[in-house]
Amino acid sequence: MAVVAGVDVGGTNITAARVEGGVITARDKRPTPHEGPEAVRDAVAELVRGLGEVDAVGVGVPGPVGRDGVVHGTANLGGFEEPSPIGSLISDALDGVPVGVGNDANLGALGEVRHGGGEGSRFLLAVWLGTGVGGGLVLDGEPYVGAFGGAGEVGHMVAVPQGAECGCGRRGCLEAYAGRAGMERAARLAAANGEQTRLIKAGKEDQPIKSGRWAKAIAKGDPLANRLLEDAVRALGHTLGSLINLLDVDTIVFGGGLTEKLGQPLIDRIAEATHPVVMLPRKHRRMVEATLGDDAGVLGAAEYALAFRR
Amino acid sequence: MAVVAGVDVGGTNITAARVEGGVITARDKRPTPHEGPEAVRDAVAELVRGLGEVDAVGVGVPGPVGRDGVVHGTANLGGFEEPSPIGSLISDALDGVPVGVGNDANLGALGEVRHGGGEGSRFLLAVWLGTGVGGGLVLDGEPYVGAFGGAGEVGHMVAVPQGAECGCGRRGCLEAYAGRAGMERAARLAAANGEQTRLIKAGKEDQPIKSGRWAKAIAKGDPLANRLLEDAVRALGHTLGSLINLLDVDTIVFGGGLTEKLGQPLIDRIAEATHPVVMLPRKHRRMVEATLGDDAGVLGAAEYALAFRR
Repeated sequence: MAVVAGVDVGGTNITAARVEGGVITARDKRPTPHEGPEAVRDAVAELVRGLGEVDAVGVGVPGPVGRDGVVHGTANLGGFEEPSPIGSLISDALDGVPVGVGNDANLGALGEVRHGGGEGSRFLLAVWLGTGVGGGLVLDGEPYVGAFGGAGEVGHMVAVPQGAECGCGRRGCLEAYAGRAGMERAARLAAANGEQTRLIKAGKEDQPIKSGRWAKAIAKGDPLANRLLEDAVRALGHTLGSLINLLDVDTIVFGGGLTEKLGQPLIDRIAEATHPVVMLPRKHRRMVEATLGDDAGVLGAAEYALAFRR
Repeated sequence: MAVVAGVDVGGTNITAARVEGGVITARDKRPTPHEGPEAVRDAVAELVRGLGEVDAVGVGVPGPVGRDGVVHGTANLGGFEEPSPIGSLISDALDGVPVGVGNDANLGALGEVRHGGGEGSRFLLAVWLGTGVGGGLVLDGEPYVGAFGGAGEVGHMVAVPQGAECGCGRRGCLEAYAGRAGMERAARLAAANGEQTRLIKAGKEDQPIKSGRWAKAIAKGDPLANRLLEDAVRALGHTLGSLINLLDVDTIVFGGGLTEKLGQPLIDRIAEATHPVVMLPRKHRRMVEATLGDDAGVLGAAEYALAFRR
C-alpha cells in the first residue's frame, strides 16, 4: 500500500500526517514561518522527514496554485507576494520525492469527497464557514483548479451588488455576510450604535467573537445575532443557488467552525434559502456536514499526493 | 476523415448539417414540430438521412440533458415535460447510428472553442445574449454538463437579490436584466409610465424590440435604451466576475443577437464591469466575440458527435 504524506500549510500552523489507505498513522505540526517560500520549504521538509519514508507528498496552501505547483501569491503567508514554485522547492529538499501542491480549500474538498461527508459524490462543492468563507470544487471526481489555479473562491462571489465591505477590499462578497470576520464587523457596528447583544461581553469588548459565542447567542434568541445569521443564510442561499444553476453539483458539504457549532439545522436553513433560486431541483442533491474536521486538509493533501507517485 | 451530422433543435427550426473536418459540406432545415419526442425524432431522422451516410450524430436541444442523452424536461419544445431518452430514440430510428445529445448552449460553446472565437482555450464560458441569456461551459477542454445535465445556466444566476421578475418565474436572474425579453419588459414599463424612447415606435407599439432597434436607439443616445443597457452591463459584470472567481476560466466568448449588433465595444464594457469583482486578474484572460454565428450549434453538435463514433 502506498504511504504518502499530507501537509496542510495554514496561516498559523503547518500540520503533516503520514497516511496509508486513507488512514492517518502518524502526525506532527509546527508554527508556520512567515519569512517566505524557503522557510516554508524547510519547515515542510523537516516535518515530512520526521514521518519516515513516503512515496509522495501532497501540500495544501492558502492561496491560488497552478497544477504545476506554483503558488500565485497569497496574503495568508508572509513573503509569498510573487509566484513561487513551492512544489519543486519542497521536492528538491526531499531528494526528489514527488510533491503535488494544491489550494487548501480544494484539497479539503477532495478529502471530504474521498473519506468524509461527500463520499459517493462526483460533483461536489465544499464550503468552509470559518473566519472567511472558503470553497473547494471536485468536478467529475477530480479537484478543479481552473485555468490559472484560482478556482473555488465561492466566498468572493457577489452576494449583494455594492453591498457590505469585505476583508478583501471588494464589496458585497459572500464572505462579508457569511464569514465570521464580516459578521463580527457588522455586530460591532450595531453595538457601537447602541444595539444590545450577548455577542459582546462587558469588559471583554476587544475579544474576538468565536463560533461558540455565536451559537450561544443564537440559541438564547439574541436578536442581533439572529438577524446577522439570517443575513448570512440569505446570502448563502442566493450564491449557492446561483452556483447550483451554473455547475449542477450533486453535493454541497459544509465545514468550518460555524458549521461545527450550528450543525445540520444551519445547513437545512441554507438549503431552504437556495430553493427559490434553483432551476433544477433534484431530490438526489445533498447538503450535508463535513465529517473530517481539521483532518480534511491533510487527508485531502494525501489523496492528492497519490496522483503524483512515480 | 469522419463524416458526422450536427443537429441544432431550436424552438422554431431544426437545422442539420453534414460536417467533415470542422467544415459544413451540406445542410438542411425544417420547422420544429411541437407534438413531443417522437415527432422530433422523426424530423431529426429525416433531416439526417437526407445528408447521406454519417458515422455519428450530435444533437443540441434547448434544455437540460444528461450524458446518457436523456432530456430532463424543457419548456422550449412541446411535449417534453417528462424525461425523454431522445438520444436512443433517434439512434433507433437511424438503424443504430451513434447519437450524442447535449444542451444547445453547451454545444455552441464547444463549437466556438474548437472552431470559433474561443480557439485555443481550455476553460471557456460562452454567453449567448439573445431573447434570454444562455450559457455553455467547456472545462479542461470538454463540455461540462454537471451531475444531472443541467449545468451552464448562467442566465439564472442571481444578479440582483429579490430583483426584477424573470421569464422563468424567479426574481433577480441575470436574464431579467441582460436578456432582450427582460430588457423589453423594462422598456415597455417605462414607456407606459410616460418615458419617451426610440425603442417603441408610434403605431407599432406591439412589435417586439429586436436587437437592431436596441443598437440604433443606443447609438442615437436614447436615454432609456442606454440606461437599460447600463443595467444589463452592471448585472453581467457582477455575475461574470463571480463566475470567474469560482471557475477561473481563461476565455469568455459572447454571442447572440445583441452581441452581433453591439460587438466588441459592448464586450469591453462588460469586461470593465467585471474588474471590481475579479480577485485574480490575468492578462491572459480573454473576452471576445463568437465568430460562428448561427453555425455554432451545428458545428458544436458535430464536434460532440465525434466522441460517440464507434
